[in-house]
Amino acid sequence: MGGVTGCVFCAIAAGDVPAPVVGSTDGLVAFLDNRPVFKGHVLVAPRSHVVTLMDLPAPSVGPLFVFVRAVAAAVEGGLGAGGTFVAVNNKVSQSVPHLHVHVVPRTKGDGLRGFFWPRTKYASDEEAATYARRIAAAFPGD
Amino acid sequence: MGGVTGCVFCAIAAGDVPAPVVGSTDGLVAFLDNRPVFKGHVLVAPRSHVVTLMDLPAPSVGPLFVFVRAVAAAVEGGLGAGGTFVAVNNKVSQSVPHLHVHVVPRTKGDGLRGFFWPRTKYASDEEAATYARRIAAAFPGD
Repeated sequence: MGGVTGCVFCAIAAGDVPAPVVGSTDGLVAFLDNRPVFKGHVLVAPRSHVVTLMDLPAPSVGPLFVFVRAVAAAVEGGLGAGGTFVAVNNKVSQSVPHLHVHVVPRTKGDGLRGFFWPRTKYASDEEAATYARRIAAAFPGD
Repeated sequence: MGGVTGCVFCAIAAGDVPAPVVGSTDGLVAFLDNRPVFKGHVLVAPRSHVVTLMDLPAPSVGPLFVFVRAVAAAVEGGLGAGGTFVAVNNKVSQSVPHLHVHVVPRTKGDGLRGFFWPRTKYASDEEAATYARRIAAAFPGD
C-alpha cells in the first residue's frame, strides 16, 4: 500500500504530480496518457503500487476491470469513438513499473493494426497441442 | 446465455469446433488463437455470447480477469516468456464479435512495438484538459 518513491503513477495517484484525471474510485485513478496513441488515451491504475496484473491481489481484480469497463464506455461515449482497445503490458514493454490498463479510443481505419499484424501459424496441429499442454500444465495453484 | 448460431467461439465453448484448450472454468474457456501473434497466444472467452466488455454483466467481469490473470501466469511460466500482453478489442479490430481477451507471450526485443509506437502529443495542457472533461462527463451511471 501507499506510494513508492520515484514512481510517477504513485505520485499522480497521490495528487503530487498533476495529470488530467478523468475519473477515480477509492482504489483507482484514471488519467490521460501524456503520450497518447490517440488523443483521449486513458491509463487506469490502482492507487497502491503493484507492478503487474499478477501482483494485484485477487479481490482487487474485479473492481479494476469493472472500472476499466466504465472508462471504456466513457471514452467511447465522450469522444464519439467507434470502439476501444483495452490493454495491459506485463513487464515487457511496460514503460512504468506500476500496473496500468490502457484504454485507447479506436476509429475504423485509424491505422492501429500494427499489433495484430502480421500473424504467424503453427506448423501443425501437433505443435499447437504442445503449446496448449505447456500452458495448461503451468496454471498457478488455487 | 447459450450459443449463437454461426459464432465460432460459441462453437468452441460448446466443444462443437475443436480448438487447443489450455484451461477452462464453468463460465470461461481459454484456447490457442489459430493465427497467433506469437506462438502460445491464448484467447479467453466467456462461454455465454456477449460482444464487448461493456456487454458483459458486472458480476462476470471479476471472474473473467481473475482467470485471465491465471492464464497470463501460465503463459509466462509454461513458455518461459519474459512477460505478457493482455488486450481486448471492443468493436474496432474485433475479428470475432464474441468477447475475447488476448494473452500474448512477450519476449524483450520480440518486435511487438507497433501498437505503442508512434505516439502523438496534445497541443497544449488545455487540449488535454478538454479531452479529460469530455471523457469524465460520459461515465455511465451506477
